[in-house]
Amino acid sequence: MNKIPFKGVIAYPITPFDAGEKVDVPLFRRLVERLVANGSHGIAPLGSTGVLPYLSDEEKEAVTEATLLQVAGRVPVLVGVSNLTTEKTIYHAQFAEKAGATAVMIIPMSYWKLTDDEIVAHYDAVASKISIPIMAYNNPATGGVDMSPALLKRLLEIPNVTMIKESTGDVQRMHHLRRELGEDVAFYNGSNPLALAAFSAGATGWCTAAPNLIPSLNLALCEAVEANDLAKAQRVFYEQLELLKFIVVKGLPRAIKAGLNILGEEGGYLRSPLKPLTDEEITELRNILTQIKN
Amino acid sequence: MNKIPFKGVIAYPITPFDAGEKVDVPLFRRLVERLVANGSHGIAPLGSTGVLPYLSDEEKEAVTEATLLQVAGRVPVLVGVSNLTTEKTIYHAQFAEKAGATAVMIIPMSYWKLTDDEIVAHYDAVASKISIPIMAYNNPATGGVDMSPALLKRLLEIPNVTMIKESTGDVQRMHHLRRELGEDVAFYNGSNPLALAAFSAGATGWCTAAPNLIPSLNLALCEAVEANDLAKAQRVFYEQLELLKFIVVKGLPRAIKAGLNILGEEGGYLRSPLKPLTDEEITELRNILTQIKN
Amino acid sequence: MNKIPFKGVIAYPITPFDAGEKVDVPLFRRLVERLVANGSHGIAPLGSTGVLPYLSDEEKEAVTEATLLQVAGRVPVLVGVSNLTTEKTIYHAQFAEKAGATAVMIIPMSYWKLTDDEIVAHYDAVASKISIPIMAYNNPATGGVDMSPALLKRLLEIPNVTMIKESTGDVQRMHHLRRELGEDVAFYNGSNPLALAAFSAGATGWCTAAPNLIPSLNLALCEAVEANDLAKAQRVFYEQLELLKFIVVKGLPRAIKAGLNILGEEGGYLRSPLKPLTDEEITELRNILTQIKN
Amino acid sequence: MNKIPFKGVIAYPITPFDAGEKVDVPLFRRLVERLVANGSHGIAPLGSTGVLPYLSDEEKEAVTEATLLQVAGRVPVLVGVSNLTTEKTIYHAQFAEKAGATAVMIIPMSYWKLTDDEIVAHYDAVASKISIPIMAYNNPATGGVDMSPALLKRLLEIPNVTMIKESTGDVQRMHHLRRELGEDVAFYNGSNPLALAAFSAGATGWCTAAPNLIPSLNLALCEAVEANDLAKAQRVFYEQLELLKFIVVKGLPRAIKAGLNILGEEGGYLRSPLKPLTDEEITELRNILTQIKN
Repeated sequence: MNKIPFKGVIAYPITPFDAGEKVDVPLFRRLVERLVANGSHGIAPLGSTGVLPYLSDEEKEAVTEATLLQVAGRVPVLVGVSNLTTEKTIYHAQFAEKAGATAVMIIPMSYWKLTDDEIVAHYDAVASKISIPIMAYNNPATGGVDMSPALLKRLLEIPNVTMIKESTGDVQRMHHLRRELGEDVAFYNGSNPLALAAFSAGATGWCTAAPNLIPSLNLALCEAVEANDLAKAQRVFYEQLELLKFIVVKGLPRAIKAGLNILGEEGGYLRSPLKPLTDEEITELRNILTQIKN
Repeated sequence: MNKIPFKGVIAYPITPFDAGEKVDVPLFRRLVERLVANGSHGIAPLGSTGVLPYLSDEEKEAVTEATLLQVAGRVPVLVGVSNLTTEKTIYHAQFAEKAGATAVMIIPMSYWKLTDDEIVAHYDAVASKISIPIMAYNNPATGGVDMSPALLKRLLEIPNVTMIKESTGDVQRMHHLRRELGEDVAFYNGSNPLALAAFSAGATGWCTAAPNLIPSLNLALCEAVEANDLAKAQRVFYEQLELLKFIVVKGLPRAIKAGLNILGEEGGYLRSPLKPLTDEEITELRNILTQIKN
Repeated sequence: MNKIPFKGVIAYPITPFDAGEKVDVPLFRRLVERLVANGSHGIAPLGSTGVLPYLSDEEKEAVTEATLLQVAGRVPVLVGVSNLTTEKTIYHAQFAEKAGATAVMIIPMSYWKLTDDEIVAHYDAVASKISIPIMAYNNPATGGVDMSPALLKRLLEIPNVTMIKESTGDVQRMHHLRRELGEDVAFYNGSNPLALAAFSAGATGWCTAAPNLIPSLNLALCEAVEANDLAKAQRVFYEQLELLKFIVVKGLPRAIKAGLNILGEEGGYLRSPLKPLTDEEITELRNILTQIKN
Repeated sequence: MNKIPFKGVIAYPITPFDAGEKVDVPLFRRLVERLVANGSHGIAPLGSTGVLPYLSDEEKEAVTEATLLQVAGRVPVLVGVSNLTTEKTIYHAQFAEKAGATAVMIIPMSYWKLTDDEIVAHYDAVASKISIPIMAYNNPATGGVDMSPALLKRLLEIPNVTMIKESTGDVQRMHHLRRELGEDVAFYNGSNPLALAAFSAGATGWCTAAPNLIPSLNLALCEAVEANDLAKAQRVFYEQLELLKFIVVKGLPRAIKAGLNILGEEGGYLRSPLKPLTDEEITELRNILTQIKN
């Protein structure tokens, strides 16, 4: 087992629906293919971008299998398997492993705020049932729980919890992780507008839906950092910042679908209650994308 | 259709599980019976207390039917039918109506923060498919969305959205609702520690899990307010405040289960990742309950 | 020494300036006279309403003396003496005592966030130098420090710290104070929109600038609570709520000055950088005051 | 007039007191000398670190003059002249200019939350009375006002408001400033733990009290960024991060005084209500400083 199989730009596909709000698997595969072809260093289906919580068990399984078939080993695949109950999380993690996932990502979803002990037991239960690595995902805005660095440290003591994705949007949390957890821990940035600050702070990778729209700029930022060229990283970052902020503020599934359409690509439909961006928002996005091209 | 069928104390049962973490329907019915027998003015299964989001569709249906069978028309029943997708919310709302529910409660659950237009369309779609009243529930802490008074006003224009449950824990929101929506709107308090302030502000009812443990005190507060006896309401409120705060801070399903056990009642098991209170917490709760009795 | 010399409505005069931005003492005395004549139960110069921090030492002394001369023992007087340094706070507290103040109010102003020990030592140092009671004032929004109930408990152990004014705007803090500090502690509400909730929770008094504009309604709320008439208290509260919110949102010195002008009274000038309300805001305030009269 | 006279490390001296809590001017001059001798690119007396708001007018003047005498033109000097009233701010800004200050720093201190128009008028009034540049300082935690990028843009239209110091602790604000205000605006970072992120985002300088304790590391970070060596900047930053966080969390005047003592330097006394760090805190700081040396 490669304990830290991801680095660089880990791209998140949306889950497109057809006009009847059913998952459109063929379109999904084409969207995954675009991400791989455009140079993404990893593919992560069933994230927030992929509207994981809006899908049935069968749909999650279909999306998992479709990803692995399409990627076909060209880059590592990180499958989101988060669920409110421990039992269901185990179920989906085992499915992902059997389907060939490189690793799984788990956020401690919560309706009732979980205690630290409950969270540790939850990860522990899942980890004991699979043999691929787990990326623990901290995102209080969507998960409802803010995992402290101390808690993350406890999670990292579970053998196959080997990576952390941090999406609080506070770069100081990344500094803290690095100080608390040591230089060897692999942490990934999940907050698009923090991409530069996170790489500067030593992030191993960037989990992002942006490669659906601007893959070259995303990769260029990553490469400038690897080349130790801060000036270039800064310049490339500011070129893409407005788009990064737009897609976060408007909601990734809505914004990526609209952006794909603007680029002349199919983006499918959204599942209710999610609705498309308004005309004004689409115009704003078009302007941002046009400005980036020039 | 009685558009505002609830007032006073609306009691929330927990959903108990057996040792294998399956829903324990017979125990659930006994817990519902206690609430009715103790004088609750309404019963509300499948709320946060009833761990709605942790249940499968079949389990939700079983709990709905068990409640209506057990209550047998003695008091009105408010069934929680919230779901992330509009399609599923409609499905459960229709099931509740057919099963005989007096009304349904809907919180706009969200993983992706919904826009106001998405929320209105969501309620509208459900409302058009049922003919019983809907209580719109605002609870940013669990639902992830904070519905403004302006948005609630839009929802109330949908004919069968007739009641609002407010759980932000800020009494000024209730003042605002009353000012904005007029004296005739029925708003219900869902924040236990605000029970006195909410009734003082004119709340029609109190949605609470506390009657599982201290029904007489809950009803006494309600009666003192109806009798226009502020001094008594204040005294009775302070008698129960510590318990109200405890059950909120510790999480209602955990705290109610522990409290039932302390009172010599069966409370069943919790579903993972939720775990029982620690021994220290149980001791603290026992002390609170003992002090209340004396 | 009467340790708790205040109850009911404690009225806060503004400090008016002349066209040259000097304190207008004669006008200040007329404004104080109005408050006493209209039935206020106490007068509190040099509060936030009285722009204490914008005044020089000499101005503070002039305002203190003017208040005591004008009130002439008809009602108790609470003088604000807060200052960033301990030495200056002692100086002004001693001045107020010599001038005849009934008590002083002290908020732990801070530029650097003070530790609990620093706050206790600050109050202790002042308390040891005067023999009149001290009202400790908690208002994180203006003072920069949020004193916990545990800290307030420590302060109340200082013999002449006998009263607490709470302005966090969270009624649960008042519940907490009452539970932690016992039924005998005198706490005062400093958050206008919480007036009903605070009296319902057992507040001894209401510290407010509203009697500059609507004294009868303020007193009527207080009297309804004393008469144990919750229904009337609620009705009277909602009649004045919009005004209470307006003056808080717009800033008390600006809003009271504008309101006085609308009522045909002189309100003087503000000291820069504070500026008068805009014309739109003045129109809004006029509408609120007109509606209240009818 | 050089409109942007500062870059790199702008060092903030503390204002030390003697045992009687009077300003110790000779010690202050020695502390300023250390900062200049150690290579700081600018000196900024009367900041938060220098406990500006705790000083009398005479003390502020003495500190201003002492700084300019001691620095004697070797590096530029930025004098803090913030005051609650516009009149006093003008007074101190004029004094600083006459004394030879290179520029003044102004935070819109507020007891009453100022409107945008009030803030613009405040800066405008001061700017029209002096001819040296003004650095506008945004720090909601101490100033009580959070100036939006739109407001800062308005301020920058005043001819001699030419620099912005941003201390919200949110790197995204700096990104936003750069996007909104253009690449040419000079923004300075005032949040120590954000030093790396801010330089990565393009900050012109770093306003910091840290050079009182670890000048070489502060300068090394600045130089690595100038040399476009991100890897080195990252390494040097993590070496000093723990100290940067400590001094912010404990309060700069307290922490710098304690650190000076640990380094064998005189740090003077604090003015009440500020008190020295506890023994435990001093031990913690000693450990941090020791670890940095090795």
